[in-house]
Amino acid sequence: MDAAIVTVGDELLVGDTENTNATWLCDRLDARGVSVRRVTVVPDEVGEIARVVNEYHAEYDAVIVTGGLGPTHDDVTMDAVAAAFGRDLVANDEAAAWLASQGYSADDLVAETTHLPADCRPLPNEAGVAPGAVVEAVYVLPGVPTEMKAMFESVVEEFEGARTHTVTVDVDEPESELIDRFAALREAFDVAVGSYPGESVRVKITASSVDEAERAAEWVRERSTLVDPDA
Amino acid sequence: MDAAIVTVGDELLVGDTENTNATWLCDRLDARGVSVRRVTVVPDEVGEIARVVNEYHAEYDAVIVTGGLGPTHDDVTMDAVAAAFGRDLVANDEAAAWLASQGYSADDLVAETTHLPADCRPLPNEAGVAPGAVVEAVYVLPGVPTEMKAMFESVVEEFEGARTHTVTVDVDEPESELIDRFAALREAFDVAVGSYPGESVRVKITASSVDEAERAAEWVRERSTLVDPDA
Repeated sequence: MDAAIVTVGDELLVGDTENTNATWLCDRLDARGVSVRRVTVVPDEVGEIARVVNEYHAEYDAVIVTGGLGPTHDDVTMDAVAAAFGRDLVANDEAAAWLASQGYSADDLVAETTHLPADCRPLPNEAGVAPGAVVEAVYVLPGVPTEMKAMFESVVEEFEGARTHTVTVDVDEPESELIDRFAALREAFDVAVGSYPGESVRVKITASSVDEAERAAEWVRERSTLVDPDA
Repeated sequence: MDAAIVTVGDELLVGDTENTNATWLCDRLDARGVSVRRVTVVPDEVGEIARVVNEYHAEYDAVIVTGGLGPTHDDVTMDAVAAAFGRDLVANDEAAAWLASQGYSADDLVAETTHLPADCRPLPNEAGVAPGAVVEAVYVLPGVPTEMKAMFESVVEEFEGARTHTVTVDVDEPESELIDRFAALREAFDVAVGSYPGESVRVKITASSVDEAERAAEWVRERSTLVDPDA
């Protein structure tokens, strides 16, 4: 299962806000074996959001869109997702009924709160007000982290890919020393290898079975100068 | 001036690493009046990087690519940028001479270290080893934050857009109360208005002049319940 994440918001594009929503979603999806192929930040503009959602919907198994739900003029994500599918935004009775059950009457709410793309599946917002929506394989979630996380967890079972297993080894040698060792490792085992330089080099070994990942990690440990955990 | 940022790395797509490089670049570009239209994370794959760089180069005035420089098998960004322009990767004498001046002889370095897209402008890495490159309006920078920042600052003068001025007002009312006020504000002043809900609502008012932004902010302050700074 391949997925893309689209995070909406001018505040991200001017560097006011760290995109922690995307990182959290990547972590959750990876844990479920879903391969995230793109994370893209787009401005609060109907045309731009619709274009990216449309492209990613055509290319990936699932698209998660976060941000830009709510009552103000810069909350245009539902418009954009409706546009991407050529649908109208319409009052959604199920979303209104759910909000009513939480004590929000229509009079309490801004009129457009329950306007969602036609024929979508509404997603209740357990931690806020603005509902989310699922249109085909596009999941539209709020941008407020507590609301986004609660809503994602309500649909998490719908995301499921081939599980992989990763073991990390911290190596106390320059990355340039490891090139031949990595080539031999990938020859000897059915693994993907990533290396992440910092004070030392973190080597990430990923395989479809725990055993294969562990055997490959042991092979690296035997041949490398490891970071001394007590240093 | 419109720009896009492409950050390369599987570690971002599995949620291991917060994309602080993108946030930092957005902040720096915004301060220089450059409008960032996309931030996109792509995997360590030549074809995927090349496709996104190619698309964004066609669409925006400048593209900044970070990550995936270095000696290991998953460092494929230079290959990908060369491919996006239909160029070869070739040994770059200027990059080799600069590294030699820093005490790195060819024997010290992995052979491909100074292989850059043909006819590029190499960028010295003041805080590391792997050089960056400029190909037309595509700037290729390292992923290690200290190296990326130093290299960006060496070309920062090449990024310049229309400066804007932003004033923020923290309002202690629900976002849904502010809708009509924002509409009137945008009617009365030549400003862009963003609202960011949290414990209170942060209202960001952006204009091309300081005076216009300040006058609009004062208009909001006079009509709103403000957050008590001593509370």
